[in-house]
Amino acid sequence: MKQIAILGSTGSIGQSALAVVDAHADRLQVVGLAAGENADLFAAQIAKYRPQVVAMASGGALDRLKLRGQTTRVVGSGRDGLVAVASHPDVDLVLCASSGTEGLEAVMAAIEHRKTVALANKEVLVMAGGIVTEAARQYGVEILPVDSEHNAIHQCLHGRHPSEVRRLILTASGGPFRGRSSSELLTVTADDALKHPTWRMGRKITIDSATLMNKGLEVIEAHWLFGVGPSRIEVLIHPQSVVHSLVELADGSIIAQLGVTDMRLPIQYAFSYPHRWEGPLPSLDLARAGRLDFAAPDTVAFPCLGLAYAALEAERSLPVVLNAANEVAVAWFLDGRIGFPSIPHVIARTMEAHDPAEVTTLAAVRAVDRWARECSLEIARGVELKV
Amino acid sequence: MKQIAILGSTGSIGQSALAVVDAHADRLQVVGLAAGENADLFAAQIAKYRPQVVAMASGGALDRLKLRGQTTRVVGSGRDGLVAVASHPDVDLVLCASSGTEGLEAVMAAIEHRKTVALANKEVLVMAGGIVTEAARQYGVEILPVDSEHNAIHQCLHGRHPSEVRRLILTASGGPFRGRSSSELLTVTADDALKHPTWRMGRKITIDSATLMNKGLEVIEAHWLFGVGPSRIEVLIHPQSVVHSLVELADGSIIAQLGVTDMRLPIQYAFSYPHRWEGPLPSLDLARAGRLDFAAPDTVAFPCLGLAYAALEAERSLPVVLNAANEVAVAWFLDGRIGFPSIPHVIARTMEAHDPAEVTTLAAVRAVDRWARECSLEIARGVELKV
Repeated sequence: MKQIAILGSTGSIGQSALAVVDAHADRLQVVGLAAGENADLFAAQIAKYRPQVVAMASGGALDRLKLRGQTTRVVGSGRDGLVAVASHPDVDLVLCASSGTEGLEAVMAAIEHRKTVALANKEVLVMAGGIVTEAARQYGVEILPVDSEHNAIHQCLHGRHPSEVRRLILTASGGPFRGRSSSELLTVTADDALKHPTWRMGRKITIDSATLMNKGLEVIEAHWLFGVGPSRIEVLIHPQSVVHSLVELADGSIIAQLGVTDMRLPIQYAFSYPHRWEGPLPSLDLARAGRLDFAAPDTVAFPCLGLAYAALEAERSLPVVLNAANEVAVAWFLDGRIGFPSIPHVIARTMEAHDPAEVTTLAAVRAVDRWARECSLEIARGVELKV
Repeated sequence: MKQIAILGSTGSIGQSALAVVDAHADRLQVVGLAAGENADLFAAQIAKYRPQVVAMASGGALDRLKLRGQTTRVVGSGRDGLVAVASHPDVDLVLCASSGTEGLEAVMAAIEHRKTVALANKEVLVMAGGIVTEAARQYGVEILPVDSEHNAIHQCLHGRHPSEVRRLILTASGGPFRGRSSSELLTVTADDALKHPTWRMGRKITIDSATLMNKGLEVIEAHWLFGVGPSRIEVLIHPQSVVHSLVELADGSIIAQLGVTDMRLPIQYAFSYPHRWEGPLPSLDLARAGRLDFAAPDTVAFPCLGLAYAALEAERSLPVVLNAANEVAVAWFLDGRIGFPSIPHVIARTMEAHDPAEVTTLAAVRAVDRWARECSLEIARGVELKV
C-alpha cells in the first residue's frame, strides 16, 4: 500500500489523481490532502477518502470547511499547511499539484523528509530548479514529473544514461492561436485563448499554452529534471497532442511516448513507478487518429518561448523573474486589463529591468519573486487597456 | 574491439554493415565474411577488410574468387561455409544477413559457440523460431534483431519485463500497392512491385512488402523474439516509415522508436549494444517530415498477412510451409510466371495440403521445407500464366 499526499486535490490534476486512487484502491491510500479555496468539493473529498491530515489555502477557507462538520485533523493553512501535509510521517509520495509558486516550500519539505515527489507544478522547478534538484540528489529522493511532456521524457529515458542523449524534444499543441501571425494576435481575448484544442486544463495554464510560455517553462523544467542544456532541448509543434514528447539518442534514433490526452496516464505512472499497473485507461488507436502533424514553432508570433530560453541561458535569477512577470501579465490578461501581445511585453521589460543575481536559498527566490511582481505590475499599468 | 562476422556481406544489409564498420574502425574488426555469388564485390571487400576467414555460396563462386588472387583462408562453401565463418573462435558477434533460409545452421552454430547473434534474416525465426530461441536461452546468448521493426521494438522495450507489455505494434509502409483493391491487383507486375516507396531492399523482400507477407513474417518473428502471442501483435499501416514500430505498455502508454529509413541505424545499434555510439547517421527532422499517417491494414486485398497469422496460431510446422511456399511463389512472380494474386493462392493451397507436425530439429524443419517447396511448385504450375 503506497501512502500518498495530494497538494491541490480540488484542482484539475488533483481530481484526476483521486480518480487514479479510485481505480487502485488496493494499492493507494490517501494520507493527506490540501486544497485552495473550494471548501464544498474539499469537504466531499475528505468524507470519501478520510485522510489523516488536511490543509487549505486560507483561514477563511478552513472556516467554511469547519462549517461542514469535518473532523479530520487540520494541520494549517497557506504554505505552512502544505508543508505540514507534505511532511507527515506516514506519507510515501507527495503529489504537488498546487497552483503557481505556492508549493515550493512543501516540495522542499517533502524532499527533506525523504518522500518521493510527483511534480505536476512546473513553477517549482522554474523558480528553484537548482535548489530543489540539488536537495533531491543530496537526500536521494526521486522527482517524478507528472506534466505530460516531462513524464513522456521520463518514460522514454527509462534509466538510460544522460551520455546516451543527444536532444530532448518537447511537443506543443501550439494552442488555440497556432498559425496566426503577430498582427492577427493583436485583438484576441481571454475567451478566445481559453478554447484549448486538446487538453482541458486550468485557466492560467491555458493562457500559457496560447502564448507558448507554457512550453518555455517546460524547457526550463526539463533542463533541471534531466540535466540537459538549453541548446539540446527543442520544441516541436504537434497539434494533435498524441506524441507527448521525444528523446533523440546518441546514434540519431528517437524514442517517443504516445498516449491519449488524459492526465490519469502520467499520474498513474508516477504513483506506480517503478512498476506499471494495468488500469482503466483507454488505449490509443493510432489507425483511428489517422494523421499526426509536426512543425517548427513560430518564435516571432510567440515571443514568450524565446524569453524562456533567454532566461534559462542566463540562469541565476532570471527564470524567477520570467515566471513572476508571466503570472502577473496572465492575470491581467484574464481580467481583460491588458492585450495578448502585452504579455510578452511585460515579461521582457521586467527581465530587462532586473539585475541578475545568484539565488541559492528559497528566501532569495521569494525576494526576487516579490521584486519581479512589483516591477511587472508597474509595467502592466503602463500598457493597461482603457475601456 | 568487437570482432564480427558478416554472413551476406555483398547484399544490401551486408554493405550497410560494412559502412558501419568504416565509421567505427576503432571499435569493430571484421574477422569473417561470407557472400553469395558476387565474387567481384567480395574480392574487393576481402582486400579492404582482410578477414581471417571467408566463404561463398558455391564452389563455382569460390573458383571465381580464387582467380582474383585472394589469399585469405577460405573455410568452405554453401551452408558449411556459413557455419565455419559463424563459429570461428575469434568472433564475438555474427550478423546473419544471408538470404532466405541459408543461414539457419549458421545461426544455430553461432549460438552453440556463444556468439551474440545480430539477426537480419527473418526466415531463420519463421522456420525455426522455437528451436533457435530455446537454444539461445540455453546458451545464454542474446539475439539482437536488425530488421528495423524488431530493432525498434527492442529499443522500446529497453529491458522492460514482458509482463509490462500489452501489445506490440509493427508498422508497415503498405508497399507500392497500398490503397488498391483486390481487383486492381489482378494485373500488377513484378516491375510495379519493385518500386518500393520508402526502403531500398532486395527483390524478394520488396515483393514480400508488396504482398504484406513481409509483415506477416515479421509478426511470426516478433512472437519468437519477444515471447508475445499473436493476439497481442498488431500491424499498423504507416506509409512514411518514420515510426519504425511501437510497444503498448500495461497502462495504455505507448513507446515508439522513430528514425530515418537507413539500415545503418539498426545495424549500428546491434553492433554497439548494450551501448550506443555517436555516429555519422543523420538525425530525423520531424518538423520537416511534417505529417505522419496511420491506418489499419487491408487484409482482404492483401491476404498474405492473414495467412501468416493463421500459420502462427497453428504453430507446429505451418510457418515453415508458409515461408517455403512464399519463396517459391515470389520467385515465380518475379519471373513473370504467375500473377500477383496467385502468390497468396499458392501459399494457401500448400498450407491446406499440409499435415501439421511438431518440428523440434533442424533436420525436421528442412524436411518440411523440402516438402512444401515441391508441393507449392506443383500448385504454381497449375496457375502458371500462358504467354
